[in-house]
Formats: sequence, structure tokens, C-alpha cells
Amino acid sequence: MAPKFKLRYGAIKGLGEPVRFLLSYGKIEFEDERIDLQQWPSVKESMPFGQVPVLEIDGKKTWQSLAICRYLGNQIGLAGANDWEDLQIDMAVETVTDLRLKMASFAYENDPSIKEKKKAPVVNESLPFLLGRLDNLVKQNGGHLANGKLSWADLYFVALLDYLNFLTGFDLTKDYPNLSALKRTVLEIPAIKEWVTKRPKTDM
Amino acid sequence: MAPKFKLRYGAIKGLGEPVRFLLSYGKIEFEDERIDLQQWPSVKESMPFGQVPVLEIDGKKTWQSLAICRYLGNQIGLAGANDWEDLQIDMAVETVTDLRLKMASFAYENDPSIKEKKKAPVVNESLPFLLGRLDNLVKQNGGHLANGKLSWADLYFVALLDYLNFLTGFDLTKDYPNLSALKRTVLEIPAIKEWVTKRPKTDM
Repeated sequence: MAPKFKLRYGAIKGLGEPVRFLLSYGKIEFEDERIDLQQWPSVKESMPFGQVPVLEIDGKKTWQSLAICRYLGNQIGLAGANDWEDLQIDMAVETVTDLRLKMASFAYENDPSIKEKKKAPVVNESLPFLLGRLDNLVKQNGGHLANGKLSWADLYFVALLDYLNFLTGFDLTKDYPNLSALKRTVLEIPAIKEWVTKRPKTDM
Repeated sequence: MAPKFKLRYGAIKGLGEPVRFLLSYGKIEFEDERIDLQQWPSVKESMPFGQVPVLEIDGKKTWQSLAICRYLGNQIGLAGANDWEDLQIDMAVETVTDLRLKMASFAYENDPSIKEKKKAPVVNESLPFLLGRLDNLVKQNGGHLANGKLSWADLYFVALLDYLNFLTGFDLTKDYPNLSALKRTVLEIPAIKEWVTKRPKTDM
């Protein structure tokens, strides 16, 4: 019997969406539990490290989105062909994490003037530097983030984009033709297209 | 011929030390280049994403410490026996990354009063929560972070500890017997002991 999958996350795309993309790509049925803010305090305590996403696999709790995505990538044929290829995938996804952490460094600041002060160097310096190099990486890899072929890194990045764009306030890929093309490539995969059409509509 | 390894990092332990631990454990000869702050601006531009550590393997640049450590873990027999075991290792190391990011959220703040304000909730809430659960994870795993046996996650954590302790200002493991025991276990591995004895002495 196939294992049962249950994703536990908030009612947003965020860090849960890469997991949803990979499960959808692999045609793996999953329960998509969306915990609302009122429920969260009571749920938090029962999560292994007080965080979500948590993916339950046959009742066993797994946590940390990147760890889960790497595991799923392996199960659905989107990992590398060997350790060296897996390294290239990991280098790319960790760079996407750096990008995300740059956004997070200002996005959750409540004071508008402090937020603007933190946001400016990120938008003017860090983002152009990172995005320019990521765009070049995709160019070198024939339209993908690693190994010249589709991998879970591509799905991870594109699944996260709506959330990153929401935090930043603009489409990160707009000035980067290779990143834009990668986004289109992933969103045109039939299983991803189907998921994106049927998923609940949320801002971030 | 064995591949040639050259680690490029700053003159600190920091995120380079887990790479040094794993290379040492695997008895892999490596050049340990330590870039000083004066050299850094001229080196930065030539790094793939403007960051170190970078590990050159036969002249090919690899980056992102976790990606590099996972690759090395695979090469030296410290990965899991299957995808599920690798997932357990990844869940643990990503949790250590969360711990590190909590420290980084205050440690690089220059203004002492702002620093204190940021540090208090981390030290009083986040650290006890995360460390308590990590300690329990090690207890459940018979003295290791995953799978009831030594893995690259254990070396990663212990290699990073001096740096994390420096940022926090106290020994993170002091109130956590299982984490303290894990530290001793790793530091008593002959190849690690040899490396720790011969490495340059630095604060962090």
C-alpha cells in the first residue's frame, strides 16, 4: 500500500508550496491541512520543533521544508543522477534560501521607517547581485538551476516565487530573462499547471 | 589520482569549520586557505555568489556550506543508509541552521542597546525551546542527531559550536546533557582530535 501523506502548514503558499508542488508533480495524493492563526498556538507545541511545514508520512512527522523537498525530489525522480549532481542542486536551493532570508530581514519589520531603511540595501544591492548570478546560473544550465535538466531545485524556486514576490512587493524575475523563462517552464508542466489551477487562492 | 581539495574561507572557524571537520574525518588532504579581511573585497567578486566557504574540488568551485557538507558526508561514509535516513540527517542539520540564524539575528547588531533588546527573547525563549528539543532528539537517537548512529550531522553541529557559543557568549550545551555528550563523542574521534589540536587558534 502506498504511504499516506499529510501536509500541515498555514493557509498560505510560503514554505509549504514547494512541498505541494513536488507532491503534485509526483502525482502523490496528499491531505493539504491549512492551519489558521487561531488554531496555531495549540498546534505549535505538538510540532517536532514548533514549526511548520510538517509532512506526515504514514503518521511519522517530518519537518524542515528543504529536507522534506530533497526527500520528495528523490522519490519522484527529480534528484541528480549522482552525488556531484545532487551537490549542484543543493548549491542552487541553498542560494534560493539566501535570497529568501534577505527578504525576511526586512519584510516582518512592523515599523515602516525601520522597514524602509532595512529594505533599501537589500533591494538596491543584495537582490541585483544574487538575482543576476542566479539568472546566469540558469543560462549556463540551459534553462534550469542545475545539471542542464529539470530538478527539484527548479520546482522549489518557482513554488516559492509568489511568496518572495509578495514580501518584496514586485516580481523578482522581471529583469531576468532566464529566471522568467524558468518560471514559465515549471508552470507549464501539466501536473503543476493542474495544481496551480485548483489550489486555494492566497496572496502569499 | 585523488581529487585536489582547496577550502577558501575566512581566518575563523565559522561556517568553514564543518567542512574542515568532514575533510579531516575522511583523511582527505586539503589546502586550508584563510582569506583575511584586507584581501576579502578583491576575492569576493570571484566567488560564485560572493560568499565563502567555497570548496574547490579539482579546480571546480562549490559553494554553500550545507551543500558541501552533505556531499562530503556522502563521500566519507557519514550519510544515511537510504533516503529515509538522509531525511533524518537533513532535518537535524536544518534545525541547527535555525539555531544559527537565531544567533545571527542579534550578534551582528552594532548598537549595544538594540542588540540587548534583540538578544533577550532569543536567549530566554528561542534557545531553550530549540536546545531542549535538540537535546531530546539526541537522547532518542542514542547520543546522535539522527538514525542512532554517527553521521555528518553530528560533525556539522559540533564543528559549528565554538562559533555559535562565541556569538551567544556562553556554552550552548551547558544545561543539556545529551548535547554535551554528543560534543564529547565527536571531539574524541581520533581524526577530529588531531585536527582540533593542529588547527590555528581562533575565537570564533
